[in-house]
Amino acid sequence: MKAIIRVALKSGVLDPQGRTIARSLAHMGFEGVTSARQGKIIELELNTKDAEQARIDVEKMCKQLLANVVIEDYQIEIIDQKTDKKTK
Amino acid sequence: MKAIIRVALKSGVLDPQGRTIARSLAHMGFEGVTSARQGKIIELELNTKDAEQARIDVEKMCKQLLANVVIEDYQIEIIDQKTDKKTK
Repeated sequence: MKAIIRVALKSGVLDPQGRTIARSLAHMGFEGVTSARQGKIIELELNTKDAEQARIDVEKMCKQLLANVVIEDYQIEIIDQKTDKKTK
Repeated sequence: MKAIIRVALKSGVLDPQGRTIARSLAHMGFEGVTSARQGKIIELELNTKDAEQARIDVEKMCKQLLANVVIEDYQIEIIDQKTDKKTK
């Protein structure tokens, strides 16, 4: 089982990395960029066949380690490689 | 127009962040995690109505700034918010 977790700053939280990207792109001549935000994406390989259990575990991992829930939101996608079934 | 760019280390390139995540999760009692890899995700708001042009520009941005093409791969998704059409 594979889990893809997207972690992004909540809207309203200042994103200095995103701001730097937007400014750099403008300096480089890409003038159409009105905003940029940067988040992280974490891919886990899980040694389980139970998608429901995988989601419960990954939810715990997000709360305890992968995301700072005070300022970040996360989205979990579980991919069963055998059936190629994706659940968000 | 919105662009979502996923940047990930090429497979085979050592990912110390991912390794730290996998090790930390194991220490915390999540024993089913066999591997972890971390990448970044960048969301851009683009001031254009032309999806084709947007893709060309974002491709350039990736090569020049957003990704290190020697060790990283990137995927671009262009989202036209008016029609909600997504192209990868």
